[in-house]
Amino acid sequence: MPIYNAPVRDMQFILHDVLDVSASGLPGHDELDRDFTEAVLDAAGKLATDVLTPLNTVGDHDGCVLENGVVRTPKGFKEAFDQMKEGGWTALDCDPEYGGQGMPYLMGLATGEIFVSANMAFNMYQGLTHGAYSAIHTHGTEEQKQTYLPKMVTCDWTGTMNLTEPHAGTDLGMLRTKAEPQDDGSYLITGQKIFISAGDHDMADNVIHLVLAKAPGGGESTKGISLFIVPKFLVNEDGSLGDRNAVSVGNIEEKMGIHGNSTCVMNYDGAKGWLLGDLHKGMRAMFTMMNEARLGVGLQGYAIGEAAYQNAVAYAKDRLQGRAVTGAENPKGPADPLIVHPDIRRNLMDQKSFLEGARMLAFWGAHQIDRAHAGQADAEGLISLLTPVIKGFLTDKGFDTAVNAQQVFGGHGYIEEHGMSQFVRDARITMIYEGANGVQALDLVGRKLAADGGKPVMAFFETVKSFIKENEGNEALKADFLDPLKAASKDLQAAAMFFMQNGMKNPNHALAGSYDFMHLFGHTVLGFMWAQMAVAAQKQLDEGKGDATFLNTKLATGRYYMKRQLPATAAHLARIESGADPVMALDAEQF
Amino acid sequence: MPIYNAPVRDMQFILHDVLDVSASGLPGHDELDRDFTEAVLDAAGKLATDVLTPLNTVGDHDGCVLENGVVRTPKGFKEAFDQMKEGGWTALDCDPEYGGQGMPYLMGLATGEIFVSANMAFNMYQGLTHGAYSAIHTHGTEEQKQTYLPKMVTCDWTGTMNLTEPHAGTDLGMLRTKAEPQDDGSYLITGQKIFISAGDHDMADNVIHLVLAKAPGGGESTKGISLFIVPKFLVNEDGSLGDRNAVSVGNIEEKMGIHGNSTCVMNYDGAKGWLLGDLHKGMRAMFTMMNEARLGVGLQGYAIGEAAYQNAVAYAKDRLQGRAVTGAENPKGPADPLIVHPDIRRNLMDQKSFLEGARMLAFWGAHQIDRAHAGQADAEGLISLLTPVIKGFLTDKGFDTAVNAQQVFGGHGYIEEHGMSQFVRDARITMIYEGANGVQALDLVGRKLAADGGKPVMAFFETVKSFIKENEGNEALKADFLDPLKAASKDLQAAAMFFMQNGMKNPNHALAGSYDFMHLFGHTVLGFMWAQMAVAAQKQLDEGKGDATFLNTKLATGRYYMKRQLPATAAHLARIESGADPVMALDAEQF
Repeated sequence: MPIYNAPVRDMQFILHDVLDVSASGLPGHDELDRDFTEAVLDAAGKLATDVLTPLNTVGDHDGCVLENGVVRTPKGFKEAFDQMKEGGWTALDCDPEYGGQGMPYLMGLATGEIFVSANMAFNMYQGLTHGAYSAIHTHGTEEQKQTYLPKMVTCDWTGTMNLTEPHAGTDLGMLRTKAEPQDDGSYLITGQKIFISAGDHDMADNVIHLVLAKAPGGGESTKGISLFIVPKFLVNEDGSLGDRNAVSVGNIEEKMGIHGNSTCVMNYDGAKGWLLGDLHKGMRAMFTMMNEARLGVGLQGYAIGEAAYQNAVAYAKDRLQGRAVTGAENPKGPADPLIVHPDIRRNLMDQKSFLEGARMLAFWGAHQIDRAHAGQADAEGLISLLTPVIKGFLTDKGFDTAVNAQQVFGGHGYIEEHGMSQFVRDARITMIYEGANGVQALDLVGRKLAADGGKPVMAFFETVKSFIKENEGNEALKADFLDPLKAASKDLQAAAMFFMQNGMKNPNHALAGSYDFMHLFGHTVLGFMWAQMAVAAQKQLDEGKGDATFLNTKLATGRYYMKRQLPATAAHLARIESGADPVMALDAEQF
Repeated sequence: MPIYNAPVRDMQFILHDVLDVSASGLPGHDELDRDFTEAVLDAAGKLATDVLTPLNTVGDHDGCVLENGVVRTPKGFKEAFDQMKEGGWTALDCDPEYGGQGMPYLMGLATGEIFVSANMAFNMYQGLTHGAYSAIHTHGTEEQKQTYLPKMVTCDWTGTMNLTEPHAGTDLGMLRTKAEPQDDGSYLITGQKIFISAGDHDMADNVIHLVLAKAPGGGESTKGISLFIVPKFLVNEDGSLGDRNAVSVGNIEEKMGIHGNSTCVMNYDGAKGWLLGDLHKGMRAMFTMMNEARLGVGLQGYAIGEAAYQNAVAYAKDRLQGRAVTGAENPKGPADPLIVHPDIRRNLMDQKSFLEGARMLAFWGAHQIDRAHAGQADAEGLISLLTPVIKGFLTDKGFDTAVNAQQVFGGHGYIEEHGMSQFVRDARITMIYEGANGVQALDLVGRKLAADGGKPVMAFFETVKSFIKENEGNEALKADFLDPLKAASKDLQAAAMFFMQNGMKNPNHALAGSYDFMHLFGHTVLGFMWAQMAVAAQKQLDEGKGDATFLNTKLATGRYYMKRQLPATAAHLARIESGADPVMALDAEQF
């Protein structure tokens, strides 16, 4: 049975010692003092360890079942969902006007990491609801907000997002689902949607589907698409539930993982829906939801890695096999624990140094979102630029982390009993959904890099440069952190320059390097995160404050990242600078 | 339903245009002319495509079931196994003295790739039998050979290897299974073995277990271990089957993949066994089997990658999504096929350039084994050195290939329907069994590098150097192939030098870099393979021979590998040269 303990100590370090959130001057942040955030995170951790973690294996094993048109979730899910609701966890960062607790997005993300690590498939029910909540909150009429949000804040009603159709995944311009306007201002929605996570289940009274469809007059392409609210049960004027809408579950998919979440084929047969936001501008409304979802998926990537890592560490300390090459470390036992072996260390350090950097990046990103919400314009550009990096890089590396953690178990990792296979199978979806990682790379290079005349990326380089300059007198950190960061940042700038100089002639020169650029950017930004953590840790050590063991561990882990992971930037740059020719050399028939 | 077609054209190119096997002067090789090998490979391909491929999904879905102590294989497996036997495929490279066809090992490997690509779980039943056959053939008495080999050559009886126990995986010195000598020269074997592939099933009349156990007088550690032949049914003097032996299946494991193969817990309760090879020298006999098995697992790694790649290519050509950035390529259709997109190309080229290099390496390795069998001493050292590289590198990259192929399918890759999940789940075991890849890296750096005074590795460097020198006048290949190979080889030598200079002071400096060294070596040797293929292809083009499209495709694919994959050597070298300090900085408690 896998274990999980929330990394509250590490989260507290990021929140207070690096980001210093309570002094940030952002609305609502002054309440986030150490004791308060610790109490919140501890409580989330307790629910995660005691309730959600044991259910993770159950969910994987039992899966969701479609019975007479209704999806049944695994045994115990409903009771756990009630506990989530009663604890107020679903309302944490929602608008108090609709029953939310009004905490910053950052706190929603921090507790989200904990719940995802414990049970990703389970947490998706509320995660998707939160995305739908945000879309309605941003684009809905006051009436729509009053009708749906209070129930969605509590997760009495849950939400979904319906984009994909059998023949249209990334290419949403090809959608066939139709919306026919009715005299009462509503629409009748007809079509089939696939891969709808949490599409139906037995834990909520209603499911509020947000559905992309084509209404008349919008023409072809994505420009003709609108977004509709389609509830499973129609809502009466008094807020009570009315008739069953004409939406049904066609099937639930057999998947590689996340068996605890119902992935549904949804059939809309003239279901009643209401326009959300402007007609023919559905993509804009959907992107509100999708950007949030992409950050959430990046979080899933490293959060599963964290859970897998914790189990790998426990196994490496416990399992006796072989002797340390430098002399027995457990001489009275029949063998030494796995953790004495350098290659096991190499594996665990790769995991640990990625995970702590990833957490810092996710928290820093959430902090930018809170800054953007407070109207700080530079934050908006920065988070928009980094969203595809956070989604693509953290999920690719999160999956690698789960695979590496499984590897520590040897043959015991391959059998289902220890739960390591589940981490790998669950993590795999994060590289695919909410835009496959290749699409993230395309978004980054094809759109975000040039957005707003390149201002955000210039601002990023400038931020890194100023940071290095500010700290260049710090001899303790220069060679270990600042110099490698400078080198990585130089590689990233060289890659961006290559795209600028060559992409004009032939856009393939940029797109053929897009995936490597996403990873190059990911490494660089993680290097930047590590440098910030190192400065904070060193400062405390210099001042004789804090837990010296924790701080020294932090510095050693960061040094590992800078020394052993960051040099990957050079290999990515070499691939990028080889341009499109090697990539596009063959005709399709030659494959 | 996944597709698979044997890459016979590519195999023929390697066999005849690169290795020129029929002119190699090795015993039995003169018969391997183009027509003959093509006929063999085509026939294997037909069986693979028509019979084994459709069963692959069935095997994954149905799995093996333990019923009243007997393992039932999935529906259709027995009939397919009979076809394998009747076609003589199990006897291909076995000794004619015991009913084999006496073909070179290379042909067994080439047909093995085809069968593994089509259905890895199925092919393991005969693969393990072949390993047990080799161990008995090399170490058995004439009586043992006469008793077991003819039936194992035909797979009327299959074989297993029993090493692992619950508390003893890599560390075989900790084995508890006991062998008590009896007056009649036999032994009684008592203990439990786990993770026994093909441990029991319903496709053969008998199962011949090779079991590691401790006989009295051998002391602790691996030196006290002996190897025993323990048949499921005892064999009478006339060769007929006698009593059921005291060996039984305790359980079959729930695994991540290879569900079509029965992974058994085997209980030996005073089962009758006979010593194979010398008393207390069981590890030596087992290594015969294990080295062969390690090459076979390396083969599995890329062979699954090949099957996954073929499906990814088919999907990328078929699935319409988005438009080429340089202008529509399918203007009459609703969208262009995926394969127009540069990042899809990048993904497919990563796969293709690895797979063709891997095939060449596996064939070249098999050719070295045939040379070693013929008494050519340098071949023995070379293949011994490269066995951990072939196993570790080809399975790591083969798994990556399966993951990349799955990624091409987007969400459709995550549901089980298309079979891409199975390729990933099946491929995952290859990185673990027959010595987890970290153990391969340890074997490479801790043992093989220094073996025989370093002669084999020096010989490898010398071979690469002479090859470059021989071809340095070849201007068409210099910049694209020879220069990158030289650079990679230099990185590999620098890494070996770092180990020599620092490993003496502290062996952790070598072991902390062992995994990266395995990959650095893998890339370098694949670069060498590609350079050899390029020389062969260019030669034919210059002479106006052969299929120009095939040869130009080969060259373009090779150029991709040299340009985009080989630069990884620098990143591995940087990691290696950072030494043990970053890796070993933390105490176990700090994780």
